[in-house]
Amino acid sequence: MENISLRLLENAVEELNKLPGIGRKTALRLALFLLSQEREMVERFGNTLIGFRNNIRYCKHCHNISDTETCPVCASPKRDRGQLCVVSDVRDVMAIENTGMYDGLYHVLGGLINPLAGISPSQLNIASLPGRIQQENAQEVILALPATPEGDTTSFYIFRQLKELPVRVTTLAKGIAIGDDLEYTDELTLGRSLSNRVEFKL
Amino acid sequence: MENISLRLLENAVEELNKLPGIGRKTALRLALFLLSQEREMVERFGNTLIGFRNNIRYCKHCHNISDTETCPVCASPKRDRGQLCVVSDVRDVMAIENTGMYDGLYHVLGGLINPLAGISPSQLNIASLPGRIQQENAQEVILALPATPEGDTTSFYIFRQLKELPVRVTTLAKGIAIGDDLEYTDELTLGRSLSNRVEFKL
Repeated sequence: MENISLRLLENAVEELNKLPGIGRKTALRLALFLLSQEREMVERFGNTLIGFRNNIRYCKHCHNISDTETCPVCASPKRDRGQLCVVSDVRDVMAIENTGMYDGLYHVLGGLINPLAGISPSQLNIASLPGRIQQENAQEVILALPATPEGDTTSFYIFRQLKELPVRVTTLAKGIAIGDDLEYTDELTLGRSLSNRVEFKL
Repeated sequence: MENISLRLLENAVEELNKLPGIGRKTALRLALFLLSQEREMVERFGNTLIGFRNNIRYCKHCHNISDTETCPVCASPKRDRGQLCVVSDVRDVMAIENTGMYDGLYHVLGGLINPLAGISPSQLNIASLPGRIQQENAQEVILALPATPEGDTTSFYIFRQLKELPVRVTTLAKGIAIGDDLEYTDELTLGRSLSNRVEFKL
């Protein structure tokens, strides 16, 4: 008996195993699934993901991901430019869009302040926020961050940065459950917490 | 409010969503994970999977997947050519190799007889089995198929095909739990059921 080495399979499993939440057993199952598909399907699969990574852009205004220099939300004449909704990441934009209860603009931070993980305010899209508020002449900034210690820290930090500006700073109503991430909140709850947003208080 | 369309992201999510067990939420998470990686990583990821699909071969003797025309097991002079272990698919070969208790050859059927799913014996690598037994001058055929109705049906069918040949037909000892697939059986149990294999009886 010796180890049977299947280099091609081993490489494929290793690559799939890099995905979050995909262990070696699942990676093997996925690799064998791809093997059972038409060559054209697997080529489209691989090339679509490569093209996605290589061609995606970040909106120069709100930092949301976009196919173009300015994302569809920022480019839309129908959106209310008086409202800026500050979110942690791209999935939160999708979650709020899915509620159908918000027609303002977004500002995507690209994460949350987290000293333990070494993420400081300078690594997030926070410094550009005051300038953007003035440029859009926004009347209100909605802090739509998760109800977690990192989310609270980030809300507090941003509130302090904005306190000299003539802008109303609100936060999501605590209809969202403590400890939850936005993307897992049901649309009704998330929509209601947008409607019931309250003044940010220390 | 209008639907924000992100074609590149949507395409990537759609492709990942084709994988078994990966829903749309997970696909979105995986797509955003790929976005956070270096371009080179994503290119290697996609191209490895495409190369895997395009370059993998099936061993012309045992139908196991292989980098070469003859797989490492069939090519090895150390394997006992008197034993042929009949398995449903490639993962079962790996499971048995991992027990370290088998040093014979394999014969991969590529599935199980399943009339409800429209899989008949002619779609599996069964017809080539008698010829292979004669060619290798095999003394024993071990039916290492799952203890499921489909596995039993397939074992029975193969046993009938081989009954005129001067070969001992054995099956795995019922150490494997009824209803289980081989790949999930722990190595000790699977190894023991190989040692304790018994004559195939109707």
